[in-house]
Amino acid sequence: MSAQPELHITVAGTERAVAAGTTAGQALEADGRKVVAAKVNGELRDLYRELADGDAVEPVEIGSEDGRAILRHSTAHILAQAVQELFPEAKLGIGPPVENGFYYDFDVAEPFTPADLKAIEKKMQEIIKQGQRFQRREVSDDGARAELATEPYKLELIGLKGGASDAEGASVEVGAGGLTVYDNIHPRTGELCWKDLCRGPHLPTTKVVPAFKLMRTAAAYWRGKETNPQLQRIYGTAWETKDALKEYLAFLEEAEKRDHRKLGAELDLFSIPDEIGSGLAVFHPKGGVVRREMEDYSRKRHEEAGYEFVYTPHATKGRLFEKSGHLDWYADGMYPPMQLDGGIDYYLKPMNCPMHNLIFDARGRSYRELPLRLFEFGTVYRYEKSGVVHGLTRARGFTQDDAHIYCTKEQMADELDSLLTFVLDLLRDYGLNDFYLELSTKDPEKSIGSDEVWAEATETLRQAAEKQGLELVMDPGGAAFYGPKISVQARDAIGRTWQMSTIQVDFNLPERFDLEYTAADGTRQRPVMIHRALFGSIERFFAVLLEHYAGAFPAWLAPVQAVGIPIAAEHVPHLDEVARRLRAEGIRVEVDAGDDRMQKKIRNAQKQKVPFMLLAGDDDVSKGAVSFRYRDGSQNNGVPIDEAVREIVEAVRDRK
Amino acid sequence: MSAQPELHITVAGTERAVAAGTTAGQALEADGRKVVAAKVNGELRDLYRELADGDAVEPVEIGSEDGRAILRHSTAHILAQAVQELFPEAKLGIGPPVENGFYYDFDVAEPFTPADLKAIEKKMQEIIKQGQRFQRREVSDDGARAELATEPYKLELIGLKGGASDAEGASVEVGAGGLTVYDNIHPRTGELCWKDLCRGPHLPTTKVVPAFKLMRTAAAYWRGKETNPQLQRIYGTAWETKDALKEYLAFLEEAEKRDHRKLGAELDLFSIPDEIGSGLAVFHPKGGVVRREMEDYSRKRHEEAGYEFVYTPHATKGRLFEKSGHLDWYADGMYPPMQLDGGIDYYLKPMNCPMHNLIFDARGRSYRELPLRLFEFGTVYRYEKSGVVHGLTRARGFTQDDAHIYCTKEQMADELDSLLTFVLDLLRDYGLNDFYLELSTKDPEKSIGSDEVWAEATETLRQAAEKQGLELVMDPGGAAFYGPKISVQARDAIGRTWQMSTIQVDFNLPERFDLEYTAADGTRQRPVMIHRALFGSIERFFAVLLEHYAGAFPAWLAPVQAVGIPIAAEHVPHLDEVARRLRAEGIRVEVDAGDDRMQKKIRNAQKQKVPFMLLAGDDDVSKGAVSFRYRDGSQNNGVPIDEAVREIVEAVRDRK
Repeated sequence: MSAQPELHITVAGTERAVAAGTTAGQALEADGRKVVAAKVNGELRDLYRELADGDAVEPVEIGSEDGRAILRHSTAHILAQAVQELFPEAKLGIGPPVENGFYYDFDVAEPFTPADLKAIEKKMQEIIKQGQRFQRREVSDDGARAELATEPYKLELIGLKGGASDAEGASVEVGAGGLTVYDNIHPRTGELCWKDLCRGPHLPTTKVVPAFKLMRTAAAYWRGKETNPQLQRIYGTAWETKDALKEYLAFLEEAEKRDHRKLGAELDLFSIPDEIGSGLAVFHPKGGVVRREMEDYSRKRHEEAGYEFVYTPHATKGRLFEKSGHLDWYADGMYPPMQLDGGIDYYLKPMNCPMHNLIFDARGRSYRELPLRLFEFGTVYRYEKSGVVHGLTRARGFTQDDAHIYCTKEQMADELDSLLTFVLDLLRDYGLNDFYLELSTKDPEKSIGSDEVWAEATETLRQAAEKQGLELVMDPGGAAFYGPKISVQARDAIGRTWQMSTIQVDFNLPERFDLEYTAADGTRQRPVMIHRALFGSIERFFAVLLEHYAGAFPAWLAPVQAVGIPIAAEHVPHLDEVARRLRAEGIRVEVDAGDDRMQKKIRNAQKQKVPFMLLAGDDDVSKGAVSFRYRDGSQNNGVPIDEAVREIVEAVRDRK
Repeated sequence: MSAQPELHITVAGTERAVAAGTTAGQALEADGRKVVAAKVNGELRDLYRELADGDAVEPVEIGSEDGRAILRHSTAHILAQAVQELFPEAKLGIGPPVENGFYYDFDVAEPFTPADLKAIEKKMQEIIKQGQRFQRREVSDDGARAELATEPYKLELIGLKGGASDAEGASVEVGAGGLTVYDNIHPRTGELCWKDLCRGPHLPTTKVVPAFKLMRTAAAYWRGKETNPQLQRIYGTAWETKDALKEYLAFLEEAEKRDHRKLGAELDLFSIPDEIGSGLAVFHPKGGVVRREMEDYSRKRHEEAGYEFVYTPHATKGRLFEKSGHLDWYADGMYPPMQLDGGIDYYLKPMNCPMHNLIFDARGRSYRELPLRLFEFGTVYRYEKSGVVHGLTRARGFTQDDAHIYCTKEQMADELDSLLTFVLDLLRDYGLNDFYLELSTKDPEKSIGSDEVWAEATETLRQAAEKQGLELVMDPGGAAFYGPKISVQARDAIGRTWQMSTIQVDFNLPERFDLEYTAADGTRQRPVMIHRALFGSIERFFAVLLEHYAGAFPAWLAPVQAVGIPIAAEHVPHLDEVARRLRAEGIRVEVDAGDDRMQKKIRNAQKQKVPFMLLAGDDDVSKGAVSFRYRDGSQNNGVPIDEAVREIVEAVRDRK
């Protein structure tokens, strides 16, 4: 039967006429396996929903960002269904997709055990095999309340039009435009197997789920509030192919091996003692060496680039942060005040900029001094919520490699340009090579400064970014209220993205501090201010490098650069002499003269990821040589001492 | 008339028999000008007082420490007498001798003006000229109350047997053994000119005062408490000769020229912005250079000496300071707590030691690792009372060059010995050369640890100190409760003594932290802990060096090491080339290419105390030379560039 076309629609950019009642899936000729949903007029929809005249429809593939989110969301439903089949008393919380997976929260009497998870996974496999259809249904608030009378948490959500979010920022599944329920329908019997209050969309059927795995459980407060009941959260992951899942699990395993907190303890680099508090790390001697090398090299490069070094204290009267405005817009991120001198509030500084402004303002400035680049390894304290503190990457106290550049408007373009080159060069020297840039532009709702000034600064940043020949991602409206920003995003050895350096133009602080310089014509002018941190924080960059290198730092950063390993005790004096020569060249070298056997010593050095093992036996002693063993297990025997010293010194010098 | 001897006394070590009624002055054959008082059985007495059988009497010369104190005390009386003659409504506070002078506090309606001080000085001269006798008289409490009915502050003191002290630690003049009044008696008329409640002793007459000067006035709370009435304090000084006074005034002038707060501003080195708070300094770029050079050299030397570098945060849970005991015995010196995470107290650290102990304790330690020397440039915060905060020398936040050494008991002697040598060597490298050592020993009232352990550690310190061949001053009972200490006292260029390094043995913290290492025999042993800071604080040492050098830092520390000054504009390129060559050698050099005339440029460089001025004119350009001008004004013309570069590089390298 050929019906008259009644709808004019656009399918993947091409206009077409189709019969009334055509579904999105039909229009896209989707098999429901690869294309799992549709984007209709920019909004995600279930495939089986019918199109209207004028609709523009795009396919959503399962491997796309949207497709994965839908897959994971549907898998979360399957998880919840399995849990309620196995634990009928379990009450449902929320179950959103999150980065790389999904979770669902349950109110149950006992935490889930590993055996429970196995059983739940098995039950999920059964549900998937059945191929239950996800079917959407609009309901009134009262209707939803009646249907979900046994689900107290869902009832609470019904009142919350517009949605709500939990601590991880996952929004709950109540749409703003009216409630919907998704039913899971048995494909043959048409029986209602399970249902959930949900905004959707979902996969066509449970059978589409190609690969999933439950990962772990954790306790979580209902809606992220500590005063609410504690629920049990099950985390899972789901992927578009079995290979993608496998790859992800391998990635996780690799990431876990590289976890800086784990490596930090194994390599005796740092710790976060409970007596001091979370987010406040102490660096042990070996971590201190790495950190110092990081700082020294950065300092040297900054010196060469014309930065001037200042020092400022960690505490200050609140007055300074009133002047800077931080107490208006950043108070939540600050430690609480200490009252001194009978009632004056003092604060730990969360940022160094106000103090640098005081140095700029300590005396009159001339245009001849600009650009003035004030640099400090400035330790700041920020009151991160205890739930988000994570090792060294999200800490409560950390040291910024912080600089503030004061320049004229005319100097801004050159300064931003050379700054970005400087930043990228330096990051490359530390071994990061894979970057993209992000340009955050004005949010018209909450910005200060004229459109014209913003446009000029933003364009200047854009031009500087484009010159680098790197991928440039726009972040429209993402800028802070006081100026546009470029951030450098770096991918590490296993492909993770870390936000590194930021270059931030600031129209606000020079006004607030009434900063001025005397121009060539004798007039008083306002300088442009640029904030920039290259590492972000030394602690965080330390963690990123530690994970990037999986602890096997390049020789110049390694806490111990070479270790002498004698084949027998009589070869120790020979290695002591080699060590003496290396030490004279500034190399950090040890000789393992202990009682362990050679193989054990090699294993120890490998575990400590020492770049150069220098073995010595009778042959080496008689020839005045050593035998190299590298971290990759390869060996180079009988290298004359002069040559060996040269090789190590050059590797360190060239930061290889 | 020759009386029978009735008293057996000892005069300056020699036994003698004298007649009853013999005064101390007679026994000493004192003229009352050079010898101004007596020490009788170890107690200071007026010369005119009669001796008793068995007394041992020693002369007190006016130029001795005791003699000066008596001179100054008597001059304070003369001051008070003069003030009450000129301002009859003035009520008396207290008037003790202090270091280098004296003061007296008065309750007056208006602060004294400079003209008042002049008039008071004149009146004092009159009193001195009259030669009024100081005459001691014992009084009962009630008698004193009746006599001093119009002096409310004195009345208050009468109740305070045993004395009291004000904020500067000067004790008030009420003896523990009963009250005395000193009358000023006119030498001819016998008239009572003035009197004061006072413990004495005093000069024989006012005429003895050889030289005095009133210095300044200041407001001061009665007995140092902010809730008490504010009095007006007049400071003065008095000396044994006019030359001694002149010398002291010249010293003061010199000290004022060298005041680090003044030089800090003139040389643009640092400031203490009011927005941040007193005792919290910011280092400007030029001060940052000096500080960094100080730190870098210290770090290098510590590295060579086997120290390991750690980093610890500035804030911690109070729990750490409960464990260390600081909250028991040091809470007053700490900033108030900040409450985080719903009620946990966090504190700024006043000391680094507890954190270093956590690093020691982060894993098991073997005797093979000892001595373990943990070093940190650790910034600490101490809540000094606002009245005692002074520039960089007494600050509320400062960075210690702090190390903690953990060693076995057997290693302690060698470690203390090499440590003291290291400390003194390093101080000498910074340009201090005149030292004495102070050894603080056990206070039996308040010490922990056995006598035996104390005796051993104290003896070890004493031996280490004696090996240095320096003056060793004992400070009996002056040690902290947890162990004996050596402190290094350094005299600066104008003879002032500064306490620099301290080396402190600690028997307390290893116990409290239950620190252990595994000895060679496999047993668990407690390490000995040594605290040591060499600079004390970098900020304070910076201030000491700044005052020691009067801002004219040796070349290696100078913010700008050389400045090129062209005779005319056409000589700038020549100097730019010299500067380029110096910069390549790491020299901090500037070329003054501005519009000022040469003489002005030389004056500017002199004001900035730049070690090397490099002048260039036609002659220098044609010869490939420069002309040196040094800080002392001497000049060395036509030095070939190679030689000039060598001279500067060597001066910096050799820290000359």
